[in-house]
Amino acid sequence: MFYETAKGDHGLPHNPFKACVVPRPIGWITSIDGEGRVNLAPYSFFNAVASDPPMVMFATNGRKAGEGRDKDSLANVAETGAFVTNLVTWDLKEQMVLTSAPLPHGEAENDLAGLTLAPSRMIAPPRVAKAPINLECKLWRIVELPGGAAGERNTMVLGEVVGVHIADGIIVDGLVNLSLCKPVARLGYLQYAAAETLFDMKRPPGGG
Amino acid sequence: MFYETAKGDHGLPHNPFKACVVPRPIGWITSIDGEGRVNLAPYSFFNAVASDPPMVMFATNGRKAGEGRDKDSLANVAETGAFVTNLVTWDLKEQMVLTSAPLPHGEAENDLAGLTLAPSRMIAPPRVAKAPINLECKLWRIVELPGGAAGERNTMVLGEVVGVHIADGIIVDGLVNLSLCKPVARLGYLQYAAAETLFDMKRPPGGG
Repeated sequence: MFYETAKGDHGLPHNPFKACVVPRPIGWITSIDGEGRVNLAPYSFFNAVASDPPMVMFATNGRKAGEGRDKDSLANVAETGAFVTNLVTWDLKEQMVLTSAPLPHGEAENDLAGLTLAPSRMIAPPRVAKAPINLECKLWRIVELPGGAAGERNTMVLGEVVGVHIADGIIVDGLVNLSLCKPVARLGYLQYAAAETLFDMKRPPGGG
Repeated sequence: MFYETAKGDHGLPHNPFKACVVPRPIGWITSIDGEGRVNLAPYSFFNAVASDPPMVMFATNGRKAGEGRDKDSLANVAETGAFVTNLVTWDLKEQMVLTSAPLPHGEAENDLAGLTLAPSRMIAPPRVAKAPINLECKLWRIVELPGGAAGERNTMVLGEVVGVHIADGIIVDGLVNLSLCKPVARLGYLQYAAAETLFDMKRPPGGG
């Protein structure tokens, strides 16, 4: 089947778009507002975009449900200029989903999910202590994306990764061994998948 | 362990950064130059960034190996303004890796990998016929990212998804059933993972 996105003529009961860019990594973002209040929320429009210097992006769509304001992560990063991305693993998946609840601004999702935060080294927002990988990021730029039909605000936040925490327990023979923590990815609809069966493929000579 | 990226003081034999943002979807990008010559290459710095209108990004780092020119995908999209992203599935993974070979400009990676191309509907670059999902994208903007220590060029290409192909065989009860095609993700080092075991998690009321 084929459909034009501007027409939305897919003829399906649900918009299939998010099931078409998969599996998506989950950026579980901690940020703070100007008063130091913590926000924690998952974003699957998230990825690395460069290695040298290392940079990541996460994108926010729409306004905060029921409030007409920007989502807390976006508002916080715009205000205080930093964020942490925390890796979502198999053991943390239910707590990650709990933090997608739209709490009133200033109420901490980590409390709701029973998560302990640990201080970062180079930036102010804390990190999720149980996440085996945390990336400390400084805001580089916020890119305004085209708005949707409903006049909502779509943005992409780009940050430079300045510090990296990796749990010693997942470093084996000098390599990060992800099979020990099973990172979770977002698919379409309500679906997720864990990276369980890992395999190596050699790239052709010079393949980048 | 903790390291500062500017110092690179991780003390490991390989830079662990790419193993820290996982699992990454693979944008297998078809593009054409001004003479219609096709390029096909995989990018794992790739994701959706908005749903309405639907947009995707892919990022290119460095120059083309051995040539000092921009990578073909970037040069082609800058020249002709469109690209297709093709979904990499379990059955296509070896062919995908073959297309990461740095062929001379104008030589087609799809020929090397024995892949048949099919025409797109709304843009000029063709799509990988066997990939069960193809997104036809029009260039929206190229964002220049900070360059690395070696003075290389890092960029992010943002495109609006104007047309979507989904193989009828993976649509079941109105939903895209990804367990039928097993999308492949990129991890760190030489590692990949397939999305095999899918599970549903309900989000809290209002969770976006």
